[in-house]
Amino acid sequence: MARRVTSEAEIIERYFAPLAAGLPGAFGLLDDCAAIHPPPGHDLVLTTDAVAAGVHFLPGDHPADVAWKALAVNVSDLAAKGAHPLCYLMSCAFPEAPEHAWLQAFAEGLAAAQEAFAITLAGGDTDRRPGPLSITIAAFGTLPTGCMVRRQGARPGDRLFLTGSVGDAALGLMLRTDPNWLAGRALAPEGQRHLLWRALRPQPRTALADVLRAHARAAMDVSDGLVKDLGRMMRASGTRAVIEAARMPLSPAARAILAEEPWRIADCLTGGEDYEILAAVAPENAGPFASLAVASGIPVAAIGEIVEGGGVCVLDGSGHPMQLEREGYDHF
Amino acid sequence: MARRVTSEAEIIERYFAPLAAGLPGAFGLLDDCAAIHPPPGHDLVLTTDAVAAGVHFLPGDHPADVAWKALAVNVSDLAAKGAHPLCYLMSCAFPEAPEHAWLQAFAEGLAAAQEAFAITLAGGDTDRRPGPLSITIAAFGTLPTGCMVRRQGARPGDRLFLTGSVGDAALGLMLRTDPNWLAGRALAPEGQRHLLWRALRPQPRTALADVLRAHARAAMDVSDGLVKDLGRMMRASGTRAVIEAARMPLSPAARAILAEEPWRIADCLTGGEDYEILAAVAPENAGPFASLAVASGIPVAAIGEIVEGGGVCVLDGSGHPMQLEREGYDHF
Repeated sequence: MARRVTSEAEIIERYFAPLAAGLPGAFGLLDDCAAIHPPPGHDLVLTTDAVAAGVHFLPGDHPADVAWKALAVNVSDLAAKGAHPLCYLMSCAFPEAPEHAWLQAFAEGLAAAQEAFAITLAGGDTDRRPGPLSITIAAFGTLPTGCMVRRQGARPGDRLFLTGSVGDAALGLMLRTDPNWLAGRALAPEGQRHLLWRALRPQPRTALADVLRAHARAAMDVSDGLVKDLGRMMRASGTRAVIEAARMPLSPAARAILAEEPWRIADCLTGGEDYEILAAVAPENAGPFASLAVASGIPVAAIGEIVEGGGVCVLDGSGHPMQLEREGYDHF
Repeated sequence: MARRVTSEAEIIERYFAPLAAGLPGAFGLLDDCAAIHPPPGHDLVLTTDAVAAGVHFLPGDHPADVAWKALAVNVSDLAAKGAHPLCYLMSCAFPEAPEHAWLQAFAEGLAAAQEAFAITLAGGDTDRRPGPLSITIAAFGTLPTGCMVRRQGARPGDRLFLTGSVGDAALGLMLRTDPNWLAGRALAPEGQRHLLWRALRPQPRTALADVLRAHARAAMDVSDGLVKDLGRMMRASGTRAVIEAARMPLSPAARAILAEEPWRIADCLTGGEDYEILAAVAPENAGPFASLAVASGIPVAAIGEIVEGGGVCVLDGSGHPMQLEREGYDHF
């Protein structure tokens, strides 16, 4: 029978304390608080996001994937604000005492994510309660004082950019939850793997932080669907966005699916979990922004522009406004 | 029928944004991150603790009590480290869309707690998932750089102090969960109200923060039971504690119960949820510490001292070590 942990102290000392070794202010997780300070002239940027089994990941997902996603969705927020990751607090709720093997793999996944995102565990809280396994992370980043890139700030005339590609995670989730979904479709195994990977392993665009601070007037990460999140940016900015479906950056795998079922562009635009960055950039900065992004290794696509008004308009290939059944994901 | 909210935006704009009005870096909760910085020469102290229905509060508890407790248990951690509360992130998981009336009362409870603890909402995350209603807070405080009072640091010869009184919350919980528990006991209604209040409304000892930084070698808040938490401090410090049951600070209500059932002292020593502060103070500072605490309006009692060795020894009224069935609360 699989061995389960028997105390909170065992979880912390054996699995979590090594993850905090790089941060002196974490005090080896021997204390119940951590102490940090941003470098002089810098702000600390704070964010929190939770992931729960059955909602943000599938029960039975590999613990390393769960760990990666729990941290990535928070770091994605920091990156979109122009902040460099520093450290995080993690609150875990287990429905039953976890197995050692599960914790081992979970801690390894966190260690890999920490290294990829340059962030360190500072502290946390672990308890047992009914309900789905839940991981709530509060993540902290730094940037020069007063320089956080806001949702608010887009102005008419600004160009809208999107990093990476849109819709992969939503298509990947369909693939995961309905094994028959691919039947009869001509999607190569490599494409399938790409979509699954994108659903399981969001890649926060941390390399774009400095470019965003230098050139973006407004930015946010796309987590609940491109159209919905763009709508939030427009509401905060008091502006309207016009984007073109034909200009959406799509992966070869998504293109292969859309070639057979063009209407699935709506799933890509509203499906969520992209963890890409949406940025509004003044026209005169559009060139430098795109060049610096590419130089940072982050592909960006110009998907539309900001105009006077409110809301979001998506134009189809013929230049007509698309009618979308929904804008994105809402928990309520 | 009671009206329920229909979107996350509604919850944030209507109920939570007003709680963030006092913090410019919360950006009115229009963004997905907040930006803050500690004053020059100060550290930021970070902590996180979650409360869930059926574990940390009872399902059906008044939403204002739930709000108060969720914030208080975090602020208690900050106070014990010598930090002044600054702001917090709050992640709420609702099993179903909450009713407007519930949210209204919850927000009012948070507002009252914010005012009592001098802390402001900075941001958060709200979603819907199966399982108990859960509130996970990450709280942030400030103190002069490098001055966080640690668990580690107690030395042989130090005096051990405890604020307030011990055991009230544990007795209050018995009263709440077993209505027949009081039958035949001579506890006045005023005493009953006191115990219930202590279980529902922890009072973080924020007024003690400066005194702790000035005079305590080690400190922590007591949340999982005095004996268990003291054991943690001793493990971190590499020392042994000897405390005397007869010196425990007890409320009149607890004294009335113990007069009839003296063995219930064990419930007081291990019951948890006291949210009092335990401090180890060098003998030469014991006088000033006690005077300054009283001047700050916080009663403190000398409950024992630190010696060489490890672990915790509780002496009964005859000076013999007590055998306790358990040390405190563990989630696993």
